[in-house]
Amino acid sequence: MNTTPNSLEKLIQEFTKLPGIGRKTAQRLAFHILKKPREDAVSFAKALVEVKDSISFCKHCYNFAEGDVCTVCANPNRDSSIICVVEKASDIPILEKPGKFKGKYHVLGGLLSPLNRIGPDDLRIKELLRRTGEAVKEVIIALNPSVEGEATTLYITKLLKPLVPRVSRLAQGLPAGSELEFADELTLARALEGRVEIK
Amino acid sequence: MNTTPNSLEKLIQEFTKLPGIGRKTAQRLAFHILKKPREDAVSFAKALVEVKDSISFCKHCYNFAEGDVCTVCANPNRDSSIICVVEKASDIPILEKPGKFKGKYHVLGGLLSPLNRIGPDDLRIKELLRRTGEAVKEVIIALNPSVEGEATTLYITKLLKPLVPRVSRLAQGLPAGSELEFADELTLARALEGRVEIK
Repeated sequence: MNTTPNSLEKLIQEFTKLPGIGRKTAQRLAFHILKKPREDAVSFAKALVEVKDSISFCKHCYNFAEGDVCTVCANPNRDSSIICVVEKASDIPILEKPGKFKGKYHVLGGLLSPLNRIGPDDLRIKELLRRTGEAVKEVIIALNPSVEGEATTLYITKLLKPLVPRVSRLAQGLPAGSELEFADELTLARALEGRVEIK
Repeated sequence: MNTTPNSLEKLIQEFTKLPGIGRKTAQRLAFHILKKPREDAVSFAKALVEVKDSISFCKHCYNFAEGDVCTVCANPNRDSSIICVVEKASDIPILEKPGKFKGKYHVLGGLLSPLNRIGPDDLRIKELLRRTGEAVKEVIIALNPSVEGEATTLYITKLLKPLVPRVSRLAQGLPAGSELEFADELTLARALEGRVEIK
């Protein structure tokens, strides 16, 4: 018998809609909200709605932005001559984490996938080509090393080659701190292909 | 460099406040909210605040309730002569799941724990004793089989014995579908002690 009060059940349902959250976790989260002060629930609720109201896409790179331009494009210290192409806006904080990249980004909005009927016109490829004026010296393609990612990388590279002096991609090889023993064949093959001379 | 817009960062922070949700999961959840329609975020936000505004504690058993009395206590088909004692209100849906128990509940609100300075007066023990009138035939103590749970069970049993014809506790033993090989010694010892005659 379900003895959960309606409004609690409603909140549990809302939590289960989130990716990777099943019924049990949703219950645990809802009980947590019940235990905490009302202000906490209100501030969480506000954050949920505010994010929808204030976040749009950057008009240059299609990253998330509050206003017209994202924090990367608005930053005068970022190098406009290097553009890093990513699949989705949520890839940007991941690439920002090492703090190595000082250029700008371009969010494609997906990967080519004929099976899911996603063709070149569904991605922001035209917008990328339009950005490659004389000022752009390098485009780094940072897509997932998956089948779709590889196909999209090859497709974009072909289009970019005549327009940009240098088109590069992220290195593939062994993850740092991993062990040879546990590497799969494809990763090993790529690590061999991409081997770097020790000077 | 942190390139996340403020309102998105705020939402990520709110998600990380939930138990068991780290920065990475919080980011994933926040990006999910960003992708979904505004109505979804609004309905989630509403559910969060409504649960705080509409849920209180049942005046009989201290279960969660919308109004004065919880759905279990309000149900005329539930047997008032059996009371099942649980640690917290969130244990009730777990015990309801098998659909075997037709009695009522009593939420203690914690376990005795001298180390954390939780004594008998911090729990709803007086309220439990007050409920054990002539009509109550059995009290089932359903606390966690932990050190605190055992101590609390013994303490309450002593108080209840003179007042109630039968005081029982949940059986301890091997979990259904488990393997002997993986059972710990204490569980095996309890399963042996509590062995049941095959008729």
